Amino acid sequence: MTNDHANQLITELQGRLNDYNDLHLILKHAHWNVVGPNFIAVHEMIDPQVDLVRGYADEVAERISTLGGEPDGTPVGQTTDRTPLKYAPQKASVEDHLSAIDATYTQVLEQVRASMKLAGDVDPVTEDVFIAQAAELEKFQWFVRAHLDKA
Amino acid sequence: MTNDHANQLITELQGRLNDYNDLHLILKHAHWNVVGPNFIAVHEMIDPQVDLVRGYADEVAERISTLGGEPDGTPVGQTTDRTPLKYAPQKASVEDHLSAIDATYTQVLEQVRASMKLAGDVDPVTEDVFIAQAAELEKFQWFVRAHLDKA
Amino acid sequence: MTNDHANQLITELQGRLNDYNDLHLILKHAHWNVVGPNFIAVHEMIDPQVDLVRGYADEVAERISTLGGEPDGTPVGQTTDRTPLKYAPQKASVEDHLSAIDATYTQVLEQVRASMKLAGDVDPVTEDVFIAQAAELEKFQWFVRAHLDKA
Amino acid sequence: MTNDHANQLITELQGRLNDYNDLHLILKHAHWNVVGPNFIAVHEMIDPQVDLVRGYADEVAERISTLGGEPDGTPVGQTTDRTPLKYAPQKASVEDHLSAIDATYTQVLEQVRASMKLAGDVDPVTEDVFIAQAAELEKFQWFVRAHLDKA
Amino acid sequence: MTNDHANQLITELQGRLNDYNDLHLILKHAHWNVVGPNFIAVHEMIDPQVDLVRGYADEVAERISTLGGEPDGTPVGQTTDRTPLKYAPQKASVEDHLSAIDATYTQVLEQVRASMKLAGDVDPVTEDVFIAQAAELEKFQWFVRAHLDKA
Amino acid sequence: MTNDHANQLITELQGRLNDYNDLHLILKHAHWNVVGPNFIAVHEMIDPQVDLVRGYADEVAERISTLGGEPDGTPVGQTTDRTPLKYAPQKASVEDHLSAIDATYTQVLEQVRASMKLAGDVDPVTEDVFIAQAAELEKFQWFVRAHLDKA
Amino acid sequence: MTNDHANQLITELQGRLNDYNDLHLILKHAHWNVVGPNFIAVHEMIDPQVDLVRGYADEVAERISTLGGEPDGTPVGQTTDRTPLKYAPQKASVEDHLSAIDATYTQVLEQVRASMKLAGDVDPVTEDVFIAQAAELEKFQWFVRAHLDKA
Amino acid sequence: MTNDHANQLITELQGRLNDYNDLHLILKHAHWNVVGPNFIAVHEMIDPQVDLVRGYADEVAERISTLGGEPDGTPVGQTTDRTPLKYAPQKASVEDHLSAIDATYTQVLEQVRASMKLAGDVDPVTEDVFIAQAAELEKFQWFVRAHLDKA
Amino acid sequence: MTNDHANQLITELQGRLNDYNDLHLILKHAHWNVVGPNFIAVHEMIDPQVDLVRGYADEVAERISTLGGEPDGTPVGQTTDRTPLKYAPQKASVEDHLSAIDATYTQVLEQVRASMKLAGDVDPVTEDVFIAQAAELEKFQWFVRAHLDKA
Amino acid sequence: MTNDHANQLITELQGRLNDYNDLHLILKHAHWNVVGPNFIAVHEMIDPQVDLVRGYADEVAERISTLGGEPDGTPVGQTTDRTPLKYAPQKASVEDHLSAIDATYTQVLEQVRASMKLAGDVDPVTEDVFIAQAAELEKFQWFVRAHLDKA
Amino acid sequence: MTNDHANQLITELQGRLNDYNDLHLILKHAHWNVVGPNFIAVHEMIDPQVDLVRGYADEVAERISTLGGEPDGTPVGQTTDRTPLKYAPQKASVEDHLSAIDATYTQVLEQVRASMKLAGDVDPVTEDVFIAQAAELEKFQWFVRAHLDKA
Amino acid sequence: MTNDHANQLITELQGRLNDYNDLHLILKHAHWNVVGPNFIAVHEMIDPQVDLVRGYADEVAERISTLGGEPDGTPVGQTTDRTPLKYAPQKASVEDHLSAIDATYTQVLEQVRASMKLAGDVDPVTEDVFIAQAAELEKFQWFVRAHLDKA
Repeated sequence: MTNDHANQLITELQGRLNDYNDLHLILKHAHWNVVGPNFIAVHEMIDPQVDLVRGYADEVAERISTLGGEPDGTPVGQTTDRTPLKYAPQKASVEDHLSAIDATYTQVLEQVRASMKLAGDVDPVTEDVFIAQAAELEKFQWFVRAHLDKA
Repeated sequence: MTNDHANQLITELQGRLNDYNDLHLILKHAHWNVVGPNFIAVHEMIDPQVDLVRGYADEVAERISTLGGEPDGTPVGQTTDRTPLKYAPQKASVEDHLSAIDATYTQVLEQVRASMKLAGDVDPVTEDVFIAQAAELEKFQWFVRAHLDKA
Repeated sequence: MTNDHANQLITELQGRLNDYNDLHLILKHAHWNVVGPNFIAVHEMIDPQVDLVRGYADEVAERISTLGGEPDGTPVGQTTDRTPLKYAPQKASVEDHLSAIDATYTQVLEQVRASMKLAGDVDPVTEDVFIAQAAELEKFQWFVRAHLDKA
Repeated sequence: MTNDHANQLITELQGRLNDYNDLHLILKHAHWNVVGPNFIAVHEMIDPQVDLVRGYADEVAERISTLGGEPDGTPVGQTTDRTPLKYAPQKASVEDHLSAIDATYTQVLEQVRASMKLAGDVDPVTEDVFIAQAAELEKFQWFVRAHLDKA
Repeated sequence: MTNDHANQLITELQGRLNDYNDLHLILKHAHWNVVGPNFIAVHEMIDPQVDLVRGYADEVAERISTLGGEPDGTPVGQTTDRTPLKYAPQKASVEDHLSAIDATYTQVLEQVRASMKLAGDVDPVTEDVFIAQAAELEKFQWFVRAHLDKA
Repeated sequence: MTNDHANQLITELQGRLNDYNDLHLILKHAHWNVVGPNFIAVHEMIDPQVDLVRGYADEVAERISTLGGEPDGTPVGQTTDRTPLKYAPQKASVEDHLSAIDATYTQVLEQVRASMKLAGDVDPVTEDVFIAQAAELEKFQWFVRAHLDKA
Repeated sequence: MTNDHANQLITELQGRLNDYNDLHLILKHAHWNVVGPNFIAVHEMIDPQVDLVRGYADEVAERISTLGGEPDGTPVGQTTDRTPLKYAPQKASVEDHLSAIDATYTQVLEQVRASMKLAGDVDPVTEDVFIAQAAELEKFQWFVRAHLDKA
Repeated sequence: MTNDHANQLITELQGRLNDYNDLHLILKHAHWNVVGPNFIAVHEMIDPQVDLVRGYADEVAERISTLGGEPDGTPVGQTTDRTPLKYAPQKASVEDHLSAIDATYTQVLEQVRASMKLAGDVDPVTEDVFIAQAAELEKFQWFVRAHLDKA
Repeated sequence: MTNDHANQLITELQGRLNDYNDLHLILKHAHWNVVGPNFIAVHEMIDPQVDLVRGYADEVAERISTLGGEPDGTPVGQTTDRTPLKYAPQKASVEDHLSAIDATYTQVLEQVRASMKLAGDVDPVTEDVFIAQAAELEKFQWFVRAHLDKA
Repeated sequence: MTNDHANQLITELQGRLNDYNDLHLILKHAHWNVVGPNFIAVHEMIDPQVDLVRGYADEVAERISTLGGEPDGTPVGQTTDRTPLKYAPQKASVEDHLSAIDATYTQVLEQVRASMKLAGDVDPVTEDVFIAQAAELEKFQWFVRAHLDKA
Repeated sequence: MTNDHANQLITELQGRLNDYNDLHLILKHAHWNVVGPNFIAVHEMIDPQVDLVRGYADEVAERISTLGGEPDGTPVGQTTDRTPLKYAPQKASVEDHLSAIDATYTQVLEQVRASMKLAGDVDPVTEDVFIAQAAELEKFQWFVRAHLDKA
Repeated sequence: MTNDHANQLITELQGRLNDYNDLHLILKHAHWNVVGPNFIAVHEMIDPQVDLVRGYADEVAERISTLGGEPDGTPVGQTTDRTPLKYAPQKASVEDHLSAIDATYTQVLEQVRASMKLAGDVDPVTEDVFIAQAAELEKFQWFVRAHLDKA
């Protein structure tokens, strides 16, 4: 792999690392602040997804190291030269939180799809990382949307 | 418990939530960027501590909810009206990373001890949360220092 | 056991095999198509029941073999000389799916009770299979009805 | 420890034993009688709490024995010289049951806090038992209240 | 099943629920108060039986709900219109406790046998619940009697 | 993803859902009806494959929901506008069953390969689902063929 | 239960204990002496059945004790006033062993069915023990016969 | 290994197989018939030893097959040309059973020691089997004797 | 924490380390030398306590290191400038051993209570270590005393 | 798939089988011969990788069989018409072994990447096997390089 | 131990290491290439033996290191100054593979027996390693021969 | 076994019990006091060895009881009529601790080898205990030496 290709991949991976770090913090925040008649079911649905997203942060960061880069996962690094993902609800109903999570997933997945496309041109191994992550994130988004769906 | 007491406790707990969220991001960052002859042993020593600190973030956040507050764990909340914990090393030797972690623990523990003292005056349950957390964080700091100790 | 008795039992068991095969397909279908505010709790409640019903299909089929018969579990066999259990809802609310499941269980259990009675006259071992299956199916029906109950 | 102190502690512990025995019976009662659209999630949320409270009954009873006393956990003992905790709902909605559980927890926790205070003056070991129990009971009360919260 | 039959079964099941709730409280009481040279072996023998009896309380209560009834498991319900099972020993020798447990089992099992007979006339599923419970309760009574047997 | 693309994928996925539902019913049928000197080994070889195929049905159905579609998994849906997979052997030798299974896998895999190709043009995530399924189905077909191979 | 009834049941249970003790010895003997192309599959199929039958010996023996009797399981007791089950094959083919096992099961099951009938008249608990044992023994006999079946 | 040596070893191993088969039957018999104040502790101490001895029977039998012999483990084989180990107590006190077990172990171990010696001259592999078995059997005999020891 | 405070705590912790090292050796000694009718139950009751006490030695030693000290756990260190805990019984009855263990626990616990008090003045983290250890040691002493209690 | 394509894939897979067989032998060799201050950490880091590579050998060999080929994994086959991977260090320092492993991984991965490319043109299933293997092998190479990195 | 003795043992151990490395490669080769009606049973019987033999390679190699030697396990080392074990069958019937495996075991075991004898004269620890390995290898050879045995 | 032989063995076993008790205390001491760049790897390597050595103390002590002796494992017994194993390092580098452990193992193993030789003349069972212990202790000494080896 050329250095140029490696650097392109590293840039994409660092972007996803930032998003995943934001995302697992947001999911935990929702886990603590959701209220209403479906509290316990939604509270418990979020935790395995937190573990998954934390695993994805780990996976993209270690892929950066594998490609010879230096992943930046520090709190300061998370806010330098970028705006963190926004998430408005504090203590709020299940519906409000799930709507906000749905919107956040749309943002995050757009970027994963873009990185997947870019990686596909230079490295099938990195592309495959993004494919597998997108599959699970999209499935969770279905879970979220199924709650909001009025059928 | 009076509202006033609850609010005092919530302020302390939110402070520790911020620190723990910073801390587990920092520990993961070190996990990815450490290099040198002791790489694997230190790389693996960090992961159970990440789990522990993430559990502590969960514990203090849920204590806030229990006391009637609204924990803020969003990426934006982490950087509003406060400076995140700083952590300088990128790809660096085991010694550099462990020295930086040691310093970070000193910062974090000072605050845990202060919260413990304050909580002790109003609520033994919250105090006990901080005591148990301090015990494990101090033990990990010993692990870190034992690597740096020239005997 | 006389051949005649064995054949009577085999006929009953084949009937239940057909029903159980229909039933676990229906439960999975509901698992995929249910939506609304209670999505995740109901989605997850169905899966252990799917496993249970698949186990019952296995149990009655192997009892047929044990009695010297040839259980037919093929897709073609499921629709030859009988009408499969009907189940109307596609993507639909929790309430619609649970009502339809409730009705399906009433149909299935009526037959299990009838087979139990018939088996009781000729073979306590086969009867006991039906008794144990009815117990669990009726309990799940209570779960379903408890959701629909307006108290 | 003086006999006097031991007897004071034993009186408090016996009081909590009575309450915990009432409480786990009540929680099971709710587990069986709750109905409505959130049935399964609430039904399942209660069971681990039953185990917890039964463990607390065990813990305070064995502490009585350790201090040289004789814990009374018989059904007759539960109703001699005291009124059991009241709990009105029979088959009733999730909201009715959770409101009644919330009120019961307020009653129980008031006493645990009082025993904790009293024990703190004579025996840190017994005090610590009450602190750890209060922490988990209060957390479950938050779960309950989060369902009732209109946000 | 006719309503009349269901109501008959519910009455029997509620009777057993009351007994099982008394019984597991009594077994725990013995577990805490037994003393003498065989303390540890008997103390440990009781706990799995407590779990079993608590499971039986659960099973009969959920069968009541399944049959459309409302099980009453509250502490007040336990003492309304009935006398709880009596159990005399406080801190006492293994022999005294086991003799008292033996007598309690005789009382409880007499009723289970009676309910089994009644249920056998109207519902093999409910009958089967009582048969399986009697089997294990009688086996435990043998354990108890084997200790008391002078050979 | 355009609606058009989503609909194309949903059509392919529904086709595979139908096949997998047929296939796991067929495999269970073989599991019950196979006889001869290799009975137990083949009987036991089939069960993990049943679990696998049932998992694949789940995976394609949930992918349909994720893409916004409504998977149809009902018994009636299985036979509307399509012919179920045929499978002739009833009670029959290992060789007869394995030959029939081999032929069924050829049919099923042809369609999976076609869906994989089609999906590859529009969505690497869905393509990846089919690739992973084909890998395991082809491996099981080798198991089946290895039994039939005269070397 | 009258003493007379208990004694009748004890006689039946002792008969089955004798048979089960013979049977598990025989199954182990076959496990060691079977040879031929299906060696490993049959060798391994027998062991879980040995555990099952040993568990049945335990169950009937403990039922005797529960009913107040004294089970005799000594080697001398096994051969006093009765002829042990005969089993001819030594080192022999799978087919020879399975044919001999099939015949032994026919003998054993005839007696279990007879005991079940007799017990049914006096004690549903003991009857239920035999019903559950017959179910599993008959299922294993199907396994054995499926090997011998020429389809 | 010469045929002569193999046959010598087979003879010894068959002797031990006979003894172990007798021994595990006897231990189970004691497990069912022991009574008195130490019932449960002794009842439970015996079961793991039964598993051990059954494992030893398996081990010596499979060693016979490995050496080319045909182990005889049938009930008839157990009583042909030899007298089974005698064991007198029926329902009896812990002390009576443990004394009888102690005597039986002395008998069995004498033979194991003799076989060990003989095997040591011709095959260290078979010798090692006996050494490891003697170690555990002697340890269990200490358990038994420790109960009988008046200190 | 001042150096002075740390040194005070280290002295206490080293004292407890010495006692715990003596104590787990003594418990093992009792485990090997106890005889009489309750042998197995007492023999097995001791082992989990040995693990517990070894864990406490570990905990206090690592707390010394955490506070900057050097724990001394060598055999020579155990006997320098102190007298090890005495324990008289060799091969002896259950009663003799349990009486001696009871006395040893009284000695050990007196010191733990004293250290707890001292630590409470300077460091709640170290105090909490002693509180939790005392709770479990006192509970085990109740087990021991319950055997000796004549009721 | 055409025969021609299958044969091309088989050739690639056989090449990788040879390399993986060499590689796991080499890793074990390093595991046994490494010495120096980081011995235990590196010794233990290698073993899970050995398991992984052995699994990859299995995976490519079974893919050959699935495609209708005959994988050759014999020791003679490993050295016929090819030169095994060379690996110089015997007993040597961690640094020497890790440098040699790094070089070996570069060799192996170059071939995996080439096979991946070739497979990508004819069979996405086989391509996917190589992608997943490359991902993990490259990650392990990062582990190795991180030890050698002077930061 | 004298250096001379150590060197003698090392030579024997290195010989066995070579054989075991050849043997596990051969067993895997058979696992992949066996075909015919008993495919799955034999395919699965081989894998645990592969694990065992790989464990034996590990054990003898680590014993060489323990004795101060340098085990050579590289692919080149396997073929330098020795001929690897030959194994002819490629894709072939169960019978052909098992016959070839049987012959290979005869070769390998002859050497293990010789090493055992030699080691017995100088080091009982190394001798014991070979005894335990021979026991299991001979047992597996019985498995293999039992398949080939025409009874 | 003659009394004389038993006494000889008991003397050897008591010697090893003393050494093992010293050894596990020393290993724990090193575990707490080691510092330097390899801290965590060595700290963690020691703990499984502590468990092993404690198991060996248990094994030789219980062998003494089995032979009719009275093992002495009290702290006072450890220092009566013998000098405990010396171990100098307090807080010290990995190298210093491993050198000291290496020397201690040489001392301990010399005695185990001597006891093994003596036992070999009178009792193969006791000899086998020492052989298996020496094997593992020597392997751990290789681990220790591998760290110290400059290659």
